[in-house]
Amino acid sequence: MTGRDAHYETFEIPEFTLECGTTLRPAHVAYQTYGELNADKSNAILYPTWYSGRHWDNEWLIGEDKALDPRRWFIIVPNMLGNGLSSSPSNTPPPWDRARFPRINVRDNVASQHRLVTEHLGISTLPLVLGWSMGAGQTYQWAVSHPEMVQRILPFCGSPRTAPHNKVFLDSLRAALTASVGFDGGWYPPDRWPVGGLRAFARIYAGWGFSQAFYWNEAWRELGFTSLEDFAVGFWEAFFLDGRDPNNLLTMLDTWWAGDVGATPGFGSTEEALASIRARAICMPAEKDLYFPPEDEEWAVSHMANAELRVIPGVWGHFAGGGPNRADTAFIDAAVGELLAGPSGI
Amino acid sequence: MTGRDAHYETFEIPEFTLECGTTLRPAHVAYQTYGELNADKSNAILYPTWYSGRHWDNEWLIGEDKALDPRRWFIIVPNMLGNGLSSSPSNTPPPWDRARFPRINVRDNVASQHRLVTEHLGISTLPLVLGWSMGAGQTYQWAVSHPEMVQRILPFCGSPRTAPHNKVFLDSLRAALTASVGFDGGWYPPDRWPVGGLRAFARIYAGWGFSQAFYWNEAWRELGFTSLEDFAVGFWEAFFLDGRDPNNLLTMLDTWWAGDVGATPGFGSTEEALASIRARAICMPAEKDLYFPPEDEEWAVSHMANAELRVIPGVWGHFAGGGPNRADTAFIDAAVGELLAGPSGI
Repeated sequence: MTGRDAHYETFEIPEFTLECGTTLRPAHVAYQTYGELNADKSNAILYPTWYSGRHWDNEWLIGEDKALDPRRWFIIVPNMLGNGLSSSPSNTPPPWDRARFPRINVRDNVASQHRLVTEHLGISTLPLVLGWSMGAGQTYQWAVSHPEMVQRILPFCGSPRTAPHNKVFLDSLRAALTASVGFDGGWYPPDRWPVGGLRAFARIYAGWGFSQAFYWNEAWRELGFTSLEDFAVGFWEAFFLDGRDPNNLLTMLDTWWAGDVGATPGFGSTEEALASIRARAICMPAEKDLYFPPEDEEWAVSHMANAELRVIPGVWGHFAGGGPNRADTAFIDAAVGELLAGPSGI
Repeated sequence: MTGRDAHYETFEIPEFTLECGTTLRPAHVAYQTYGELNADKSNAILYPTWYSGRHWDNEWLIGEDKALDPRRWFIIVPNMLGNGLSSSPSNTPPPWDRARFPRINVRDNVASQHRLVTEHLGISTLPLVLGWSMGAGQTYQWAVSHPEMVQRILPFCGSPRTAPHNKVFLDSLRAALTASVGFDGGWYPPDRWPVGGLRAFARIYAGWGFSQAFYWNEAWRELGFTSLEDFAVGFWEAFFLDGRDPNNLLTMLDTWWAGDVGATPGFGSTEEALASIRARAICMPAEKDLYFPPEDEEWAVSHMANAELRVIPGVWGHFAGGGPNRADTAFIDAAVGELLAGPSGI
């Protein structure tokens, strides 16, 4: 069984010290796996989640008709800290609950996943790490933090360092939510969320998630929506009102904002960290992604030894990597297959 | 004397019926003029304001060193309805005050300006109408509504019809402000504005007003700011906290949202209205404008008989047309001079 109603596993780390200095006692990493780990534990692929996504939101790229074929690969989808399934403001008991939940870094996510993969699952090599958006950010961080383990990476619509313009976008989301009626510094009652703020959050996101051309072409019709407003409410407001706790959103937003492989201990700059990556890489920005524009990934690839830039064409912007558009999905899936068929970088 | 402290004129229209059906009794159009009207009243240029701008915010393109030279031209800058100087929620007495102020269309602005120009100033021809952003929208509407009067137009960083993606952006501004603590349906006390909502508004705008490359290059340093946050607060929050009443902002936002020359009585479509324009035109989008992308203006120009598309190059995005960058200003000024030196379209 797959999907949001499927059973999933939870890995507990009794004491997990975060980069900010706080220790979660314990921390949990919720995860789902697809396929079987083979005898020599050589077929594991790691596919972290994206901003506010849950493991089931990654399943569109997994299947017997896909390169991520569970008959061949053991695919692990760890939920990001803060997403409501792994340790989050919404599920952590006092004193680290809700608005008091500590700051989480991309490296904290990678560290928790590394313990899951190595200590719990006994895996020491990863033929591939991949992910969309913040999942791409975790992918880059994996390649920098554990070069001995990561054979290949395929980050799509994401970046190794959050760009300044992306931070401006994130700051606007934070400002709208925290200024909204009922947010109350994050201490809203658990059964009464600041809905107006979440709707504003969704409306801001709507402008960034798809491109100008997507809206000009009314490509939302392909998703079954009947007007611009129908899409704004039926897709975007529905998205953020779907069990996405405001404090959780802010925790992941902080994670995103501070993302930078260059801050990894031992490196002096983002460029230096990128140059250390040994994994073979296909880096896939989307042509019209407004917060991860292709120029940024072109810059990243120019500092990597073993990487190809492959732009996803079309008008779907950031959501080219989210699964809703068949052509984009096929384009990404083909790259995954090609990368897996080729040599390892290590 | 020029600038915000200068004396300016106010034209009163005793009964002004809006397209929405409401009648303002009276309506006011505040305006400023630069230069002298010549004897045959043949040297008047109209230069409407932009979203939340006041007449003094247009002065950067006017001067003896500019094509808009007040020694030769009589330049009229009418303030848009809703901007706080012309009739607005903030200055209209009950019952049409504050949140009850009626909806204003671009054509209402043009109608009020037409009465100012013809009835009050006795002018029957305009060698040029130009404007930035919503000023460009008014410019297009002038050319459609009064083809017999408008010889030339130079709309920069604006459009004849508000594009869907632009509406998504505007909806996000509205959602954030109206959801904010203290907005109270627009009935906040006049001396206590919803500051958190205004700051969120500013933060959203920050992501749209300049391009990704502008932020990547830290071009805000050219304006004297010292960090991204310094710019976000010192430029953007300062901008929207500078006497910009929230209800006024929402009134002008509605005007912008509904902009479409195709809705002019007598026309069946935007294309048809564009095709009717007789004025000679240079249409100037900015290369990296995120809400008025050049593609949209390319489309508009393709439907106009006498128009040239001339893209303002560079990274300043929408604010290429706002005056802060010397190179962009020189580029626009050169086009104004060239257009004025060439033949009239009528």
